[in-house]
Amino acid sequence: MVEKGFKEVSEIMKIFLDCIPCFVRQALDSARLATDDERIHEKVVREVLRLAADLDMSQSPPAIGQHIHRLIRKMVGNDDPYYELKQRFNRLAMRMYIELAQRVRESENPLETAVRLAIAGNIIDLGVKTSIAESEIEKIINDSLTADFDGQQIEEFKNAVNQAEKILYLADNAGEIVFDKFLIEQLPHEKITVVVRGRPVINDATMEDAEFAGLTEMAEVIDNGSDGPGTILETCSQSFRERFENADLIIAKGQGNYETLSDIDKDIFFLLKVKCPVIAEDIGCKVGRMILRKSNSFKSVDNLIMEAE
Amino acid sequence: MVEKGFKEVSEIMKIFLDCIPCFVRQALDSARLATDDERIHEKVVREVLRLAADLDMSQSPPAIGQHIHRLIRKMVGNDDPYYELKQRFNRLAMRMYIELAQRVRESENPLETAVRLAIAGNIIDLGVKTSIAESEIEKIINDSLTADFDGQQIEEFKNAVNQAEKILYLADNAGEIVFDKFLIEQLPHEKITVVVRGRPVINDATMEDAEFAGLTEMAEVIDNGSDGPGTILETCSQSFRERFENADLIIAKGQGNYETLSDIDKDIFFLLKVKCPVIAEDIGCKVGRMILRKSNSFKSVDNLIMEAE
Repeated sequence: MVEKGFKEVSEIMKIFLDCIPCFVRQALDSARLATDDERIHEKVVREVLRLAADLDMSQSPPAIGQHIHRLIRKMVGNDDPYYELKQRFNRLAMRMYIELAQRVRESENPLETAVRLAIAGNIIDLGVKTSIAESEIEKIINDSLTADFDGQQIEEFKNAVNQAEKILYLADNAGEIVFDKFLIEQLPHEKITVVVRGRPVINDATMEDAEFAGLTEMAEVIDNGSDGPGTILETCSQSFRERFENADLIIAKGQGNYETLSDIDKDIFFLLKVKCPVIAEDIGCKVGRMILRKSNSFKSVDNLIMEAE
Repeated sequence: MVEKGFKEVSEIMKIFLDCIPCFVRQALDSARLATDDERIHEKVVREVLRLAADLDMSQSPPAIGQHIHRLIRKMVGNDDPYYELKQRFNRLAMRMYIELAQRVRESENPLETAVRLAIAGNIIDLGVKTSIAESEIEKIINDSLTADFDGQQIEEFKNAVNQAEKILYLADNAGEIVFDKFLIEQLPHEKITVVVRGRPVINDATMEDAEFAGLTEMAEVIDNGSDGPGTILETCSQSFRERFENADLIIAKGQGNYETLSDIDKDIFFLLKVKCPVIAEDIGCKVGRMILRKSNSFKSVDNLIMEAE
């Protein structure tokens, strides 16, 4: 049963064979975060290999991730193996916050600077995955202010935000969520509802992270009821699905939200750092690129006028 | 049954959980080289995942690679999926040969320059794995002449070569084998026998590559009778094992030979570019490092004199 406005699951960005080695790598990383017991690491890897061998390839990568990380959490006996890391990256981001907030204020184009920082914060995800050094994260964030940026649509983004009444801002990771504040500060807060994951999965932001970041003091924050590392609508709560259906603009952060929503028939702006070749090929850009891009099915008021003419 | 001079297999460098995502990635690369049929790619990946799920972790990574690549060759119906790539990298290396030979001749320390180039040639392996551009390979090779180099043992290497009567030079990959000529030219040819793999596996050099590179005109070249991507003595021919046993010095190129021989009780000099974190940790260095290092059990004449005193 497909709801109004949602495309069939089979049209969502599918898992690629290239994703499978990454799933195995991530399973091992998660197991090592949860326990030092090497027998459990081996058990987790073997179990994930078995699961992957019989994988339904019509699912999106975050849908597979949801299954795999449920399995891992069960096997390691830990509901939130990334808890410490999320805390660490939240604190790191908070330490950088004040200086960067000043950079936004002093910027010639505060909106663009805030968009850049919101996207750059997405690198903290990479940090979790590859044990990148904190000093390197700071460098990458600073570089993001001048780096190449696919932001041709920033004016359209501004207009869409102004025209919309109900905006959902789908957050991505802990740490990164602190950087979302730069952008939300530039937008009309009263229209915006920030959405976090319903339960812990990998390093994705939950309500606790939103509270730590101080987002709950700036805007309404809700959770989507799901433990998927993206926005897998079928697994979200009914109340979130209604909010999604009724929103007239979605701002979606990160690869997970892109992978699960890129073909949804909805007005969406995706903000992400492209971190893998599969996404890069789908978007048609190089790995490392910062992206602000509207969904294919986007119907802004301009588009509607054009179509009416 | 363990032969004289060989340690038990369990003491050879074991596979690590970290190797498994790489095996899956390599299986996919191989399948794609062999055929454009995506159904076969998927079949190969699923089969390798199943094999990996029940893996005997006491084997060395090349021993696993040997099994996996036999399976892949059978599934794709191609005895040598890397054939075209090997040809391409042989030709690339040959194009670079004349200019680099001049660099060796004009060098203040021709032996060190030749060792550096022989190790740098090992990067061509990385080229196969990650589709690195040819221009980038040329840059890396040139950089290798000045890069950090763990070559403290180059004088010892020189002495060991002078003292030895029978030297086996274990080659690694196609393309790279052209660069081995720089080093073999600096050594007493008549003592040296170059060893290639017995049958094609991944991009490893076979007799055809040795002939193309012109190595057969410089020194004796034999094959080891095996299709393992390393020197897995148990799977080599009896005649090679006898040559190995009787040699008084082994020069072993690349990671595969390191992984299979690092704990063998034999006088070995390993020459390799460290390409993965597992090897880097084993050696105690950073990824990317060029290494010339003798085996732990190395007994040069100096060592024997010291032990006798």
